[in-house]
Amino acid sequence: MSRPIILGIVGDSAAGKTTLTKGIAQVLGPENVTLICTDDYHRYDRQQRAEIGITALHPDCNYLDIMQQQLSLLRTGQPILKPVYSHKTGTFEPPQYIKPNKFVIIEGLLGYSTRAARDAYDVKVYLAPPEPLRAKWKVKRDTQKRGYTAEQVLAELEKREPDSEQFIRPQRQWSDIVVSFYPPNEDADESNGHLNVRLVLRPTIPHPDFTSIINLTRGSSDSAIRLGLDRDMNKPVDVLEVDGHATLDQVNKLEHIMCSDMPYLRNICDRESNPELGKIAGTTGETIQSYPLALTQLIVTYHMLKATQIFQ
Amino acid sequence: MSRPIILGIVGDSAAGKTTLTKGIAQVLGPENVTLICTDDYHRYDRQQRAEIGITALHPDCNYLDIMQQQLSLLRTGQPILKPVYSHKTGTFEPPQYIKPNKFVIIEGLLGYSTRAARDAYDVKVYLAPPEPLRAKWKVKRDTQKRGYTAEQVLAELEKREPDSEQFIRPQRQWSDIVVSFYPPNEDADESNGHLNVRLVLRPTIPHPDFTSIINLTRGSSDSAIRLGLDRDMNKPVDVLEVDGHATLDQVNKLEHIMCSDMPYLRNICDRESNPELGKIAGTTGETIQSYPLALTQLIVTYHMLKATQIFQ
Repeated sequence: MSRPIILGIVGDSAAGKTTLTKGIAQVLGPENVTLICTDDYHRYDRQQRAEIGITALHPDCNYLDIMQQQLSLLRTGQPILKPVYSHKTGTFEPPQYIKPNKFVIIEGLLGYSTRAARDAYDVKVYLAPPEPLRAKWKVKRDTQKRGYTAEQVLAELEKREPDSEQFIRPQRQWSDIVVSFYPPNEDADESNGHLNVRLVLRPTIPHPDFTSIINLTRGSSDSAIRLGLDRDMNKPVDVLEVDGHATLDQVNKLEHIMCSDMPYLRNICDRESNPELGKIAGTTGETIQSYPLALTQLIVTYHMLKATQIFQ
Repeated sequence: MSRPIILGIVGDSAAGKTTLTKGIAQVLGPENVTLICTDDYHRYDRQQRAEIGITALHPDCNYLDIMQQQLSLLRTGQPILKPVYSHKTGTFEPPQYIKPNKFVIIEGLLGYSTRAARDAYDVKVYLAPPEPLRAKWKVKRDTQKRGYTAEQVLAELEKREPDSEQFIRPQRQWSDIVVSFYPPNEDADESNGHLNVRLVLRPTIPHPDFTSIINLTRGSSDSAIRLGLDRDMNKPVDVLEVDGHATLDQVNKLEHIMCSDMPYLRNICDRESNPELGKIAGTTGETIQSYPLALTQLIVTYHMLKATQIFQ
């Protein structure tokens, strides 16, 4: 009766999808994880998009019905023949035969845009960094990895903004967790390792009970780890914030809450209670060490493991 | 409640699949027909096959599970993203989005090799020309259209023979109709227009009642149209033979049997009761006019239309 557990990582271009995906795959064990990028479901290659004047963010530029169909097939454990779009060349390559592992991570721009697609996920994450940070990330990646100039990337961002607003950002409402890495202040240095994270925990899946944090940090609104009530897309949510300068000791307390609730997570917690915690290679080759990132990965992993328990 | 009607045309390389498929599509109206070639489900491209030392006829050389999956999706009217294999270059091209029309014709080498695939068809045809005729056809096509020399084609045929025997020819047993075009005698001229046809009608689908032919032709075993009992793959079948030299008058009698049983076929019969009957362009550019081919197309069309009636 077991079937793959499906995680969605949705967000705008260069919102950090691949880095988070890689981090979670690392925690779950890469051999247990199948990675799918929904950019592969583009309807047009780069040249065709330019000719037609459509961005990759537009639903009409993607075979969303096929994406949804293949998602449903993966969810029932069936293999798929997935199209392959190369970001390097901007063209399609021979399709790829994929048999789903225990966990499937679907990352992409429009993963939550149809009802049937949304129904296929066990856990839905939406990445929402502040726009200036995303622009910085996009320039860095697309100049280093996709052969664009900084000016081209910034022009592209501007061109895509209407589609981002109309098609990408509304998907935030369907997510169970909204992840926003952000610099602690305007003058923060360039290192991603010092970013804070703001996690919106929508009560659509059973999150660990973090309310003990409120007691731990009572009275100190400047604590490095904070939990508070808020509204997101006008609906009530919990917001968990973890600062980049949080200490290993503080972080371990948060981990303890998750691990005590989830025996299967203990090995991971034990492994992570060490100075290597949260060390990961970024998309552009740099090594990042970030407790906020490590905790984000852990809470998503928590939900992936929780989802497997339904079948046990 | 309507869904596409699915026809299978299976047979060895150069057995005449594409010509028959084109002819049937012409009768059904090309705008009503979706054509699928299962060669697109090759697992390896031409170079990989050469390196591995596997022929395209081997099941392991094809994603049969994906073929079967996409067949099932088409049968329920869903679109698919079909891989595309180019016979010209021997490589894969960008996949193709296909929304099934009213009729879907699946032609290929291994269409009946799995139970689930077989279950997807409404009508199953198997093409079995005599091997010397198939060799002649294959040399002609592959030298003219796929850039091989005659010697290469003959060597390939020899190399493929064990796989043909083990994987292709056994599929004959699953077909509802076995179609064998054959020269009237050893010394027959080169023209395909003079070929006879031998149609094995397996009682697995409701064939038109051709027994009146026996009365029409009683006592004349040299009639141009003959019906007789036989065994095929050791099982009882009717065998209908139509000679290339049959007259339009004789052919129209056979058509009448089908049209009287199938009102929807009358338009086609009316259209066909003319001197253009059975005229079709062959794969290598030649024009063929063949009453045996025309009747073969008509009987297959009869079954396609019969299958639609189930939903009316």
